[in-house]
Amino acid sequence: MNNLAQLKQRVYRANMDLVKHDLIVLTWGNASAIDREKELVVIKPSGIEYDKLQPEDMVIVNMDGKVKEGSLKPSSDILTHIELYKAFPEIGGVVHTHSCFATAFAQAGKPVLPFGTTHADCFLGPIPCTRFLKDRELADYEKNTGKVIAETFTSLDYRTIPAALVAGHGPFIWGRTPEESVLHAVTLEAVAKMAFLTITLGREQCIGQKLLDKHYFRKHGKNAYYGQEKNK
Amino acid sequence: MNNLAQLKQRVYRANMDLVKHDLIVLTWGNASAIDREKELVVIKPSGIEYDKLQPEDMVIVNMDGKVKEGSLKPSSDILTHIELYKAFPEIGGVVHTHSCFATAFAQAGKPVLPFGTTHADCFLGPIPCTRFLKDRELADYEKNTGKVIAETFTSLDYRTIPAALVAGHGPFIWGRTPEESVLHAVTLEAVAKMAFLTITLGREQCIGQKLLDKHYFRKHGKNAYYGQEKNK
Amino acid sequence: MNNLAQLKQRVYRANMDLVKHDLIVLTWGNASAIDREKELVVIKPSGIEYDKLQPEDMVIVNMDGKVKEGSLKPSSDILTHIELYKAFPEIGGVVHTHSCFATAFAQAGKPVLPFGTTHADCFLGPIPCTRFLKDRELADYEKNTGKVIAETFTSLDYRTIPAALVAGHGPFIWGRTPEESVLHAVTLEAVAKMAFLTITLGREQCIGQKLLDKHYFRKHGKNAYYGQEKNK
Amino acid sequence: MNNLAQLKQRVYRANMDLVKHDLIVLTWGNASAIDREKELVVIKPSGIEYDKLQPEDMVIVNMDGKVKEGSLKPSSDILTHIELYKAFPEIGGVVHTHSCFATAFAQAGKPVLPFGTTHADCFLGPIPCTRFLKDRELADYEKNTGKVIAETFTSLDYRTIPAALVAGHGPFIWGRTPEESVLHAVTLEAVAKMAFLTITLGREQCIGQKLLDKHYFRKHGKNAYYGQEKNK
Repeated sequence: MNNLAQLKQRVYRANMDLVKHDLIVLTWGNASAIDREKELVVIKPSGIEYDKLQPEDMVIVNMDGKVKEGSLKPSSDILTHIELYKAFPEIGGVVHTHSCFATAFAQAGKPVLPFGTTHADCFLGPIPCTRFLKDRELADYEKNTGKVIAETFTSLDYRTIPAALVAGHGPFIWGRTPEESVLHAVTLEAVAKMAFLTITLGREQCIGQKLLDKHYFRKHGKNAYYGQEKNK
Repeated sequence: MNNLAQLKQRVYRANMDLVKHDLIVLTWGNASAIDREKELVVIKPSGIEYDKLQPEDMVIVNMDGKVKEGSLKPSSDILTHIELYKAFPEIGGVVHTHSCFATAFAQAGKPVLPFGTTHADCFLGPIPCTRFLKDRELADYEKNTGKVIAETFTSLDYRTIPAALVAGHGPFIWGRTPEESVLHAVTLEAVAKMAFLTITLGREQCIGQKLLDKHYFRKHGKNAYYGQEKNK
Repeated sequence: MNNLAQLKQRVYRANMDLVKHDLIVLTWGNASAIDREKELVVIKPSGIEYDKLQPEDMVIVNMDGKVKEGSLKPSSDILTHIELYKAFPEIGGVVHTHSCFATAFAQAGKPVLPFGTTHADCFLGPIPCTRFLKDRELADYEKNTGKVIAETFTSLDYRTIPAALVAGHGPFIWGRTPEESVLHAVTLEAVAKMAFLTITLGREQCIGQKLLDKHYFRKHGKNAYYGQEKNK
Repeated sequence: MNNLAQLKQRVYRANMDLVKHDLIVLTWGNASAIDREKELVVIKPSGIEYDKLQPEDMVIVNMDGKVKEGSLKPSSDILTHIELYKAFPEIGGVVHTHSCFATAFAQAGKPVLPFGTTHADCFLGPIPCTRFLKDRELADYEKNTGKVIAETFTSLDYRTIPAALVAGHGPFIWGRTPEESVLHAVTLEAVAKMAFLTITLGREQCIGQKLLDKHYFRKHGKNAYYGQEKNK
């Protein structure tokens, strides 16, 4: 329980950091974290204005989306978060935003291609866009949104590409912790904007795989040398 | 009268919230509310700088646009607001801005098409652009601007599409309350920006009607499940 | 002298308002005012950072650009300002910025066309772009910049179109007072941004002359009805 | 040592000014300075959040990149900075950012062309983009990044064009001091944005060499007349 109280604080902070980084319009977005041992997810309540949000408002749900603690309803995207926690066993946090440039790529049904090292520092390849959901999948929209992301990653590694664009919707982003998920969400929006500008300038070709690898592994894995020891 | 004093406070707050949400340049914009029983409209005064605006500056006019209370002139767009209150019996607030992306679509004479769920969460279809006014309609510009919006909604439901772009001018937005009108104005500018970027990325096709319905009715109507109980 | 002290305060305030309205990068911009009786111009000093600027730093020069008061050098654009005061007898203030969208049109050598009423409320027609200066005109660059603006207005009315884009450089803006010049500079940048977006959306055609007239004269001249009495 | 303590303060301030000027996302960027006598470089530590940065965190390294003072690791780009100090003997500061528009040109593999005087005031010609590194050059990525910039300047003057875009990466900027390097970085991002907009408006042709010269030498060299005496 002590642990969950701490997780509520961290999830609250992650949600507020999305606002600080200008990724949120009105109430459109949410961050969550999972306690893998207890199999409980902590998430922002639905439709509450950020400047009224308090750490104690965070809602705790089980892996079926049932509320276990808290008087408010969880984010309406809770079932998407849960599907991602089920499909991606090593993640500890999930973020969803409608940030402008990432959402534009999602609406266009296009991946964000790696045009430079800003991208490669965080994502080891294109950030994929899912297929559009079929009409019959819309009834369970939130659950199937999680499933179509998992399907998209059948042949991709969610650990090295920690985000997906949901076609006609927007980005979902994840990480080992809620804090890391926020950093990935900030990076996604920045590289989506840069990719938009790069494409407008007429570029179609991605950077090569070797440059992609070089930069990604500069920051990740056992040979990483970016940042201080604790950042590795 | 007590009620009108409260409405002046709310209209003042709605106007200031437009500034807070970055929808206003200089003095270009206004929010109003109607007291349906008394048939009186409360609106921002014309051409006053927002940082000098006070709740008591709000002007009260009757349904002919005649000032009933207040020493300042009402917004020059007052007759457009009044036409909208007449044409759309269930609305309680109207907002007008020259927000950048919505105005660009209005200037281009193009609707904002629904490319994603950000749009569908608020608007159950394209946000229409009116026809250009005829030269002979310009003498009564403000009144005819309201009329051409009403004309545009002959075959549309103003309750599920709470905004219109006036060709060559900019957006008018409405809602059941002045507060809701502000939220719709913020959403319009966000989806106009996302639509602009989506089009630039080469997308022409809207999302399907079923996805549109799914998201709209997730937030609206008796089966809505977004937000807390009070938000429904 | 009392009058000039006051004018220094107003010119200082006008310069700081350019920063407040996000029109300034680093030290790129300046505002001035003229005392028509004394034939003296008050202008910002050259290359001083805005957050160190004080009202007493404003420099007073005569109509040849000679410093009459102040220990600092005037803005390097002073001779352009003076040419404009000479060519346009009814103006009282001049502003120069490198604001992003107006400068982009100046660099493209293209006018900002009137695509909507935001433009028409302030400018009764296209905001013209000058021709490029000839090589032999570059020696007296600042003076000839003023002259080429005046040349551009041979067949235009500087009172109803209070701004010009200098090809390959950026905008110069004017008004009856330094305060009005700032408002025109803010409006120019806003309509340049909207025009850029409108063009990108595929629009080429301006609004008609009658709509242009309607909106311009709603705010200007003896039949104006926008704003409060003092604003006319 | 006194001198180095002062340099740490200045490098700290230069790094914080990059944030103030909105050139930094997360921890992506760094500023350094060189003490030419002692042959020591002062640089920001790697991966530290800017709002936790302190002057005493600055790291001092020798010309091989070995840490001589400080408990933190230097920026991972340190070897690029050192190559630039070696290749360009008159510079005293280096800045690296991932600022959006400059990075977009770098990703597109295109130079920022001089379309106006905003550019000419700081850069006496196009801001070049390097070639892409060859795969075998990637092992020593940071060092070879410095080398490919130096190679790009074989036929260019680094004193009059104080920045380069590294293909597929982003901009490196320099100056006689760390403070000047920051000003150049701000200018680069502004002119890259303006160039992007100018190109989108359909312009392909640069300004002429004579106008370029006129504006550059208005601000630089012994005949400069922009700014106050100390600014020359």
